[in-house]
Amino acid sequence: MTTNGADLLVTTLADHGVDTCFANPGTTEMHLLAAIGREARMSTHLCVFEGVATGAADGYARMAGKPAMTLLHLGPGLANGMANLHNARKAATPVVNVIGEHATYHLSLNAPLAANIEGMAATVSDRVVTATSPGTVAADTASLLEAISGGTARVGTIVVPNDVAWGECNMNKATVEPDPRPTHDADAVAPAAAALRQGEGSLLLIGAPFITARASALAYAISQHTGCMVMAEAAVARMQRGGGTPPIKRIPFHVDLATEALSGVKRAVLAGSRAPVAFFAYPGRSSEILPEGTETIALSPALSDLEAALEALAAELGAETAEYRPAPVPAADPAAAITPETLAATVARTLPANAIVADESITSGAHLFPYCGEGVPHDWLNNRGGSIGYSMPVAVGAAVACPDRDVMCLTGDGSALYTLQSLWTMARSRLNVTAVILANRTYRILANEMSKIGAGDPTGETMPLMSLDDPAPDWVKLAEGHGVPAERVDNVAGLEAALRRAHGEAGPHLIEAVL
Amino acid sequence: MTTNGADLLVTTLADHGVDTCFANPGTTEMHLLAAIGREARMSTHLCVFEGVATGAADGYARMAGKPAMTLLHLGPGLANGMANLHNARKAATPVVNVIGEHATYHLSLNAPLAANIEGMAATVSDRVVTATSPGTVAADTASLLEAISGGTARVGTIVVPNDVAWGECNMNKATVEPDPRPTHDADAVAPAAAALRQGEGSLLLIGAPFITARASALAYAISQHTGCMVMAEAAVARMQRGGGTPPIKRIPFHVDLATEALSGVKRAVLAGSRAPVAFFAYPGRSSEILPEGTETIALSPALSDLEAALEALAAELGAETAEYRPAPVPAADPAAAITPETLAATVARTLPANAIVADESITSGAHLFPYCGEGVPHDWLNNRGGSIGYSMPVAVGAAVACPDRDVMCLTGDGSALYTLQSLWTMARSRLNVTAVILANRTYRILANEMSKIGAGDPTGETMPLMSLDDPAPDWVKLAEGHGVPAERVDNVAGLEAALRRAHGEAGPHLIEAVL
Repeated sequence: MTTNGADLLVTTLADHGVDTCFANPGTTEMHLLAAIGREARMSTHLCVFEGVATGAADGYARMAGKPAMTLLHLGPGLANGMANLHNARKAATPVVNVIGEHATYHLSLNAPLAANIEGMAATVSDRVVTATSPGTVAADTASLLEAISGGTARVGTIVVPNDVAWGECNMNKATVEPDPRPTHDADAVAPAAAALRQGEGSLLLIGAPFITARASALAYAISQHTGCMVMAEAAVARMQRGGGTPPIKRIPFHVDLATEALSGVKRAVLAGSRAPVAFFAYPGRSSEILPEGTETIALSPALSDLEAALEALAAELGAETAEYRPAPVPAADPAAAITPETLAATVARTLPANAIVADESITSGAHLFPYCGEGVPHDWLNNRGGSIGYSMPVAVGAAVACPDRDVMCLTGDGSALYTLQSLWTMARSRLNVTAVILANRTYRILANEMSKIGAGDPTGETMPLMSLDDPAPDWVKLAEGHGVPAERVDNVAGLEAALRRAHGEAGPHLIEAVL
Repeated sequence: MTTNGADLLVTTLADHGVDTCFANPGTTEMHLLAAIGREARMSTHLCVFEGVATGAADGYARMAGKPAMTLLHLGPGLANGMANLHNARKAATPVVNVIGEHATYHLSLNAPLAANIEGMAATVSDRVVTATSPGTVAADTASLLEAISGGTARVGTIVVPNDVAWGECNMNKATVEPDPRPTHDADAVAPAAAALRQGEGSLLLIGAPFITARASALAYAISQHTGCMVMAEAAVARMQRGGGTPPIKRIPFHVDLATEALSGVKRAVLAGSRAPVAFFAYPGRSSEILPEGTETIALSPALSDLEAALEALAAELGAETAEYRPAPVPAADPAAAITPETLAATVARTLPANAIVADESITSGAHLFPYCGEGVPHDWLNNRGGSIGYSMPVAVGAAVACPDRDVMCLTGDGSALYTLQSLWTMARSRLNVTAVILANRTYRILANEMSKIGAGDPTGETMPLMSLDDPAPDWVKLAEGHGVPAERVDNVAGLEAALRRAHGEAGPHLIEAVL
């Protein structure tokens, strides 16, 4: 039976459970698109900007536990998706990028769209494969899936020249067994337990990519049993929280707060985590957050089974999990203005059970994470790569992965502008996403960072390059322009009513919360 | 006198006439931002997405004849700007990208935003320099400016680690003389003239990056004198047209039409141009457009002075320029629907004198170029790199370069969605841009290309991945959401009235023309 390279690629992906495609195709992807159309197992979501497609693939895989496929057009299409691939890679999220390339015999002609696709892909991928003939596409695809299933590589890119996609070949399928996940270091369990038993001065740092409710409960139990401090990395890709799960504090973003929080640490057990570093360097300060001379014990690598590591540690310590009684979240005065605190209280008290929160609240979000942790069960998604414009695309993907759950996106207005085209896919694919735009109409974090990094205070000349108030984006119109119903609120009562309306109706909604 | 690396960089740019910055900065650019604030010669324009900044730098340099500076944040900020840097590079537009990088001692820590900036930059730059110490920043900057002033390299990127930016140093300025432009091949003038004298079967192909009115007049005169065919490359970066300038036809985008147009060519003189190739490869077809066995004579390289080459050729031939009498543009019935032909007639008849047109009309634009060529004097900007989302950013830059001219952006709706954030900068910087969105609510070109490339007709499964009608973007709301007044029109009378209103008022306007 003959087929072609494009069909072999798509079939191989579907055979391995990759059945969701976020696409922004062009001419060089037409054979791949036709193959997708013939593969009944593959569902597709059109994105009108590639950064939406790659971020959606990230959000999808965080929640589905398996990769999605992106379909991107040549080098520039990949380039537009790179910022969110950077984030996915730092979050260790598996993603399969499929990039159409010019036919092999067309490449030397320097046509307008000819570009160094492999070079671009290498900067945001753990593995890049270029298919060389139709007959080997299945094996290439399978080897890519194998590579990104393991303990180190997660973002894979396959470049498919057009003549490889359209070339005929035999139906030579390929399958692989995914690599086993790495395990924790069994020899480190006893030393880790000994370190934590010292209580004061001991830190259990748990981390990426996924902290389950059980892992939090174990970490909390260990902390209660030994008196050690327990913290999570600043940006864990996914955390199950709420519903009585003990809330685990994150290492603060702000370097001063982070340094202060960890100032008493003498020994640290790293479980799925790395030793923390500052987000940016600041003149005259160390970029390493743990006090100098801290003894570190590596219990388990980032991509291992965190629960298993903590089960072993708890068993060694004889620590038993204990019930956690959530602290009440204060109610905000309905007439109050929207501030970081009233925002957090209102979001936490209206959060639907089993919601998924994609958090890009930046300077407006200080209270959101702790308040929500005391409420209903939910998943919290953090940006581990730091490239803004991450949360609306990630919300798209999470909503595709979990159509029966409410997805919230909490995002600064400056961040949301990078990938506002996400709203269109939310409308097209009827996704249950509530996007809350935290409209302070400035790149507030930059005004904070400028003096912190020693560049002085913003001046009349530099402040306009951090300000979004002239004109202030009208997010109601931007949302409606993309087909998403929207409203603007500026006090607690309005915000609460808008949140309840949005959560009560199917499909996407946007709320512009003016701070 | 002491200063720092950031000030040295900005001063060196300003000393060499680079006085316009399109910026989307982050924490690692704060010292550069402060330096820009201290440099009175530097004017700045905030862009809320990096693809706007890079495209604006392209449009600016095409019209100003000198580069602008972009200011981008780390690897992901560069990544977001890469697609339009690809276009700028293919158009041979000089651009200076300044990218803040983490402090050198921070790089090994794999902080969230750490990325391979040089690797990314290399894929869209002709020259990449990483500054290594504050004291050498001026020399690094000057060498970059020298490199991109010459005949081969045009897009330059300088990566500035944060500690290089904030590090103190002496005020050791550096200056360079720009490289001379390459010249035409004097030995090729006589053979080229001989080839063209044969008339029938001879082609004079003129090309990138800039065809002046004088160059068109010379090419036309040569054609009238010898009987040869004269054509322009499919996508010349800038063409001066109208006002009696003889209109030069472009090689068609569609491979069949291009092949047919050149089917009788036996010999071709390349003046500032390359032998034409197909935009994409198609199964069973050659990607080279000139008939097999065509004799080609390379008169002048792309970045040489096209006018000088054509003057020499005309002198050799004794060809004298002749007056061209423009053909009348037909008036469209005011009640008629907007079609590619009525659109073109209406735009051509309302175009303000000395307008600048950034053209991304794709499938809706067949008649725009020829009709406008018969009208008032204007400049026409084509996308030479093929990455869509180019025209609104380019219009931003052209309007900054030429504040006293009317800028039009003619763009498909699918294309415009990639970089719609351009609208915000148009509003912020009060730019005289009229953006006409050609709303056919589909990636029409893909539906055309799919069967042409042998992937079959769109099906019920694949058509949704080319269609933008569910929901149809509401461009009036999208524009107003970005602070740009807008209206929607669906017939010739409405379009004409909207165009006249837009051209008559200062500041940006958007017209959604429903086709």
